[in-house]
Amino acid sequence: MNLPQFRRIPNHIGIIPDGNRRWAEEKGLARESGYQFGIEPGLQLYHLCLALGVKELTFYGFTQDNTKRPARQKEAFKKACVESVKKLAGYDASLRVIGDVNSPSFPPELVPYTKRVTFGQGLIKINFLVNYGWQWDLKYGLSQKGKSPGQGRGLQKFIASSDVSRVDLIIRWGGRRRLSGFLPVQSIYSDFYIIDDYWPDFKPQHFFDALRWYETQDITLGG
Amino acid sequence: MNLPQFRRIPNHIGIIPDGNRRWAEEKGLARESGYQFGIEPGLQLYHLCLALGVKELTFYGFTQDNTKRPARQKEAFKKACVESVKKLAGYDASLRVIGDVNSPSFPPELVPYTKRVTFGQGLIKINFLVNYGWQWDLKYGLSQKGKSPGQGRGLQKFIASSDVSRVDLIIRWGGRRRLSGFLPVQSIYSDFYIIDDYWPDFKPQHFFDALRWYETQDITLGG
Repeated sequence: MNLPQFRRIPNHIGIIPDGNRRWAEEKGLARESGYQFGIEPGLQLYHLCLALGVKELTFYGFTQDNTKRPARQKEAFKKACVESVKKLAGYDASLRVIGDVNSPSFPPELVPYTKRVTFGQGLIKINFLVNYGWQWDLKYGLSQKGKSPGQGRGLQKFIASSDVSRVDLIIRWGGRRRLSGFLPVQSIYSDFYIIDDYWPDFKPQHFFDALRWYETQDITLGG
Repeated sequence: MNLPQFRRIPNHIGIIPDGNRRWAEEKGLARESGYQFGIEPGLQLYHLCLALGVKELTFYGFTQDNTKRPARQKEAFKKACVESVKKLAGYDASLRVIGDVNSPSFPPELVPYTKRVTFGQGLIKINFLVNYGWQWDLKYGLSQKGKSPGQGRGLQKFIASSDVSRVDLIIRWGGRRRLSGFLPVQSIYSDFYIIDDYWPDFKPQHFFDALRWYETQDITLGG
């Protein structure tokens, strides 16, 4: 594939791969069967990011909110996340799974990835959110005894996801225009790009459209 | 005006009134002169919300990030916020100004409004963010000694804006697709609607379009 050229590439891209269940439903499949069709798109996106020089990529795997869904769906999205992480670990990456590991909803197979591990040269930093919760993330700092962010000290070091940097561009598939708890601190200044197609219908052109839009946006960081 | 009918009205609407400087520039005016043209749109919007039965309305006045701008702009947006709050206080509202009052950037005229005050019957709750900072808001909880949000206890009571409820719909004028630090905890599940026109070009139809879109969205709260 000939890659398009961009004037400006975001440093850190957040991916909200939504619409798996609606995709399955439209195909006449069981709703939970959509998740397995979301694995390959993630790998495609990884390769595009690597080729374009994106430095950091965060996938919204599943959240603590999601775990309230029916058991079959829960098993299906856990399985898809486990497979995705294992496949990414076969490529070049500095990979870490981030989420509440002290919960039965956390897949035991992913525990070894909760410390950042470098595969190959670690050319791209990948954060994969698994059993992630925004309250879990923010409360981390609140429960650290004897520490407090004083004047002029960054808040970010007091959250559970402190290892994840500011997100420049969030791309959400599936048409919803909301964050749904995705990294609230790192998303403060992020630009949002929404793709109406469902995640299993991922096309490289979706991603290029998002980058083409992003390069026209100013960066003010709230200033 | 005949108000359109809606099947579902958001409980709490957040308003990001952006594009004042770009509006002035396009008119050949000094950039800072745009803010004064943003006062009347806010009052119009207030009346529409009251008429439609919206329970809570939050205006993004100015932020601590904004105060890094040139002095003339800073004076202009402070003045516009002071006038807006004083005018809203003449109508029916349960009004509160929320922001870091311990800073020279906070307009002294607005100190009396930093405790919630009821005007008339208090039919609508209005939060007006002035010298608001997302770090200021979140750090509040981190600096409360001896308190900690344990398992199952809401995080919201530990932030400076704990009096502000979850935002259902955020409407941003001026085309930017970002939160720019707007109430990170209350915006976790919010739907975003972007209007490309600049805020001083506010038309009731913008607002109706946002509500028409909102009534087609599902509410899952991340589930």
